[in-house]
Amino acid sequence: MPDYKAPLREIRFVMDELLEMPAHYARIPAYAEVATPEMIDAIIAEGARFCEQELAPLNRVGDTEGCVRNEDGSVTTPTGFKQAYQKFVEGGWPSLAHEERFGGQGLPESLGIVISEMIGSSNWSWGMYPGLSHGAMNTIEQHGTEEQKELYLSKLVSGEWTGTMCLTEPHCGSDLGILKTRAEPAADGSYRITGTKIFISAGEHDMADNIVHIVLARLPGAPEGTKGISLFIVPKVLPTADGGLGDVNAVSCGSLEHKMGIHGNATCVMNFDGATGWLIGPENKGLNCMFTFMNTARIGTALQGSSAMEASFQGALTYARERLAMRSLTGPKAPEKAADPIIVHPDVRRMLLTQKALNEASRALVYFASQQNDLVKKSESEEERKAADELLGFLTPIAKAFLTEAGCEVTNLGMQVFGGHGFIAEWGMEQLVRDTRIATIYEGTTGIQALDLLGRKVLMTQGQSLKSFTKMVHKFCKAEEANAELAAFVKPLAELNKEWGDVTMKIGMAAMKDRDEVGAASVDYLMYSGYITLGYFWARMAKVAQDKLAAGTTEEAFYKAKLATANFYFSRILPRTRAHAASMLAGASSLMSLEDEHFAFL
Amino acid sequence: MPDYKAPLREIRFVMDELLEMPAHYARIPAYAEVATPEMIDAIIAEGARFCEQELAPLNRVGDTEGCVRNEDGSVTTPTGFKQAYQKFVEGGWPSLAHEERFGGQGLPESLGIVISEMIGSSNWSWGMYPGLSHGAMNTIEQHGTEEQKELYLSKLVSGEWTGTMCLTEPHCGSDLGILKTRAEPAADGSYRITGTKIFISAGEHDMADNIVHIVLARLPGAPEGTKGISLFIVPKVLPTADGGLGDVNAVSCGSLEHKMGIHGNATCVMNFDGATGWLIGPENKGLNCMFTFMNTARIGTALQGSSAMEASFQGALTYARERLAMRSLTGPKAPEKAADPIIVHPDVRRMLLTQKALNEASRALVYFASQQNDLVKKSESEEERKAADELLGFLTPIAKAFLTEAGCEVTNLGMQVFGGHGFIAEWGMEQLVRDTRIATIYEGTTGIQALDLLGRKVLMTQGQSLKSFTKMVHKFCKAEEANAELAAFVKPLAELNKEWGDVTMKIGMAAMKDRDEVGAASVDYLMYSGYITLGYFWARMAKVAQDKLAAGTTEEAFYKAKLATANFYFSRILPRTRAHAASMLAGASSLMSLEDEHFAFL
Repeated sequence: MPDYKAPLREIRFVMDELLEMPAHYARIPAYAEVATPEMIDAIIAEGARFCEQELAPLNRVGDTEGCVRNEDGSVTTPTGFKQAYQKFVEGGWPSLAHEERFGGQGLPESLGIVISEMIGSSNWSWGMYPGLSHGAMNTIEQHGTEEQKELYLSKLVSGEWTGTMCLTEPHCGSDLGILKTRAEPAADGSYRITGTKIFISAGEHDMADNIVHIVLARLPGAPEGTKGISLFIVPKVLPTADGGLGDVNAVSCGSLEHKMGIHGNATCVMNFDGATGWLIGPENKGLNCMFTFMNTARIGTALQGSSAMEASFQGALTYARERLAMRSLTGPKAPEKAADPIIVHPDVRRMLLTQKALNEASRALVYFASQQNDLVKKSESEEERKAADELLGFLTPIAKAFLTEAGCEVTNLGMQVFGGHGFIAEWGMEQLVRDTRIATIYEGTTGIQALDLLGRKVLMTQGQSLKSFTKMVHKFCKAEEANAELAAFVKPLAELNKEWGDVTMKIGMAAMKDRDEVGAASVDYLMYSGYITLGYFWARMAKVAQDKLAAGTTEEAFYKAKLATANFYFSRILPRTRAHAASMLAGASSLMSLEDEHFAFL
Repeated sequence: MPDYKAPLREIRFVMDELLEMPAHYARIPAYAEVATPEMIDAIIAEGARFCEQELAPLNRVGDTEGCVRNEDGSVTTPTGFKQAYQKFVEGGWPSLAHEERFGGQGLPESLGIVISEMIGSSNWSWGMYPGLSHGAMNTIEQHGTEEQKELYLSKLVSGEWTGTMCLTEPHCGSDLGILKTRAEPAADGSYRITGTKIFISAGEHDMADNIVHIVLARLPGAPEGTKGISLFIVPKVLPTADGGLGDVNAVSCGSLEHKMGIHGNATCVMNFDGATGWLIGPENKGLNCMFTFMNTARIGTALQGSSAMEASFQGALTYARERLAMRSLTGPKAPEKAADPIIVHPDVRRMLLTQKALNEASRALVYFASQQNDLVKKSESEEERKAADELLGFLTPIAKAFLTEAGCEVTNLGMQVFGGHGFIAEWGMEQLVRDTRIATIYEGTTGIQALDLLGRKVLMTQGQSLKSFTKMVHKFCKAEEANAELAAFVKPLAELNKEWGDVTMKIGMAAMKDRDEVGAASVDYLMYSGYITLGYFWARMAKVAQDKLAAGTTEEAFYKAKLATANFYFSRILPRTRAHAASMLAGASSLMSLEDEHFAFL
């Protein structure tokens, strides 16, 4: 397993220098006093230590041992997972970004994201347990009654209990409108929940005393489709009125899925056999309730791509500096050794730089999105909240789908740098590929994200949503127009930014005649948008680096590396927009003209 | 596991209609009488039956059970593997494309490739056992003494014994020049081989009575580097003079590797502890000997990409026709069902068509390359042999690297079509991803192939090698210049064909000043070349379809599907050349300017 070292200098660069988080926190009254620079630094440093020392060593253990379902239906997590979780709880980590009146520390979500990144890089499977809790907490925080909050939220915030999200059923995932789980009202105001849920991450385990399931189900006589789905709290153990543990509920783990990766996480088939649950939020508005914090959840999944990039890059870079093979074509670079370290070879550098360029810009995008999330939640200006919400809504599908797709590419490159050894489990590089692969699927596949971006966000707002971002890009390009040293970045970015609007218009026009044009263009549109978005962040990072170098710095190499990586991104990655632009403008007929039954002649 | 059905109609299309194999065989005296159309049909049909019924059902077994090394160092293969191999031997399959005087059937390698494709689609891991034997046979056929051939080849051809290739060592794979295994001459003319080899596929198993290792090692006082490597035959059990089994040799399996995929194949660490071996080929010319049939071996690995595409496509297509989710944006297509089958959605079709387009053109490329191989081996005209060799040499790195990279993309798309279920082992889609992932690494990584293509093949021949192919493309385009219906394919193909020469020239000029320009452009150049090459085959397949439709056919839907897929390829896949062209022309400085120690600041 590659050693993980928290990239604190890179985190600081994005937090302090690129996004000016200290000023951002200072401007938000809810955070001004708690999220002081000293506090932020201390929390990140302590989080880094926890991830490096407690979680990273368990990552391979989780993969090789996996979870085990015992005969009594209980699930044992991999060796060390439970102990690490106890330390996590003792350290107060679950409460970081939650409300103070339920025991939270009231710190910003954007700080939580930094911690989550480090957890994700060191041990994604482990991180899913508190990650799912976070989703359950958000649901209860936003839609629970005061009583529900007191009963459940305090236990979740402290970490004593964990949570899950139970959405998928065997026959439906993307299309929740056809789900079948039933909720029958009981005389005491509770409900009896009956049905089977699959792919339930952290559905059963031995790390906490209780598990709070948030379950989507249908009330009797509910309208068909997505408008007839309600949300329920279904605890594994029914709490007593004072928050103690009462009777065991009729919910159980039927089996564990055998998966390609994230073996350390228990992915459960959950059987609800008339389990007792309580409605949360209004009847039949379950999906709407879920949507209110979907942006947060999806940024959390985007992070899986981004955090895997860091882990894979660290592993590949170490190996490329140590492994000897062949001589540089321009003459030996380590003549005292049997061969040169492979980092001297241009193609190895191409792989490493692709990792580095995607990784660093991904971090910038995730933190930026999370910064918007802070504003949505806590800005005192309604206008600012609204603008941030629009921007976040636009960036969320890009971050979720693009960064997870890029995460797959980057982890595969990391494995490739290792040659044959990359395919061998003990090096840990192939685990990163397998673990990351799920990220383009769950929490809405790339295809679903792309429809959300192009259909729901961009076209349904007549392009307003796109403009919330392109205006920002335009403003930056305009401001740097005369900056000759940045021209290599600003000029192509400005052109692409304009093209982005133009192609959107074209697709929108075509879609008015044929709705299939949206789906036909969607994934290419998303990838195209992703490359431009990361291009914007690279241009901004280059600008920061340029300013620092101009002002004089003791970290010249650091800032020059930023410029070199930006240059790599613009000259070797951004041209991929040409392929996606051509493909997305090829029209629906190139996809729809073949009859379903003529795809194969067997 | 997706059911595998041999794509006989597609195979016939490429064999008979596109490449006119019957005429090709008839023109080669060595094949004219054995490879008759009836014989070919019968062999393919029987091979299809064997793969569908015997091998495909064992594919998931191989993945879940894997191989087990027993305490005595023996290796047990997954349940059923041995029995299937016995049937394979009884069916005479190992002897198909080998010399008649050692018990072979003397059939063309290009027919063997068709069988190998079907084996690969149904169970790649199993196919590696006979596949490695094939490599060992080729070595002995070409470089063995008459005595060695009689002793070993007949047993390998019959399938009683299997073979391996022992190249890689812990510290070297791509750079065999630094290998350490020693060969000390003994008084009786044999050698004592000492060293450790890793990643030895089929190194030890229970499927055959003996295993013939072809081992790279150094003689005492041999020159350093690649010019001091010799080739040895090292059998697991020393044969008696009459071909019986004598003493056990000092070679053993030290352990099995734990790998991402191909679990059914025993990937061994092999320890040679003064094992008895015999020199094969001239002293210190071991690598040259290997090179003489490297094209064949690499086409065999290219096939892994291509055969996985077929398997993944079949699985994804079946699922896309059955799985219901959401309604078509243009209105319900299956109103009687709870939702439409997902094949109605444009983006699902984009994924399926990407699979289909890459799959079918890959088959064309592999079969075409193998057709050239037939000529290299058996044409009676020296000129034809030479031309075929040049063409094959050019196409081999493209086929090996491009088709395996594309194989990874296609199997990942197949998994993506399944959504969450794709990540679950029982569906078999993720196994295809894991099994295929090794193909871009072994038998020369993508990076190594790209250097071979651009450096060794193209630039070292001053572009002659490239021209051997582009002339063919040019001729085709010229002939179809006035064909209005094919203009959508022929015109862009002709332009790219010209550009291909131009960019090669540019890179060649740059490389004269800086050798790193070769490595810096190489992988993008290879991928660019791959897309154009497949474009050529799509244009030719479209031409066949057009002719058939014009002549009148009962299979209109089949040929129209070819045109629709060609159209998809040209409008949505071929534009990827734009990204690769830009990247490869970006120059070495974008990769080399960052100092090794400045890739990360941790």
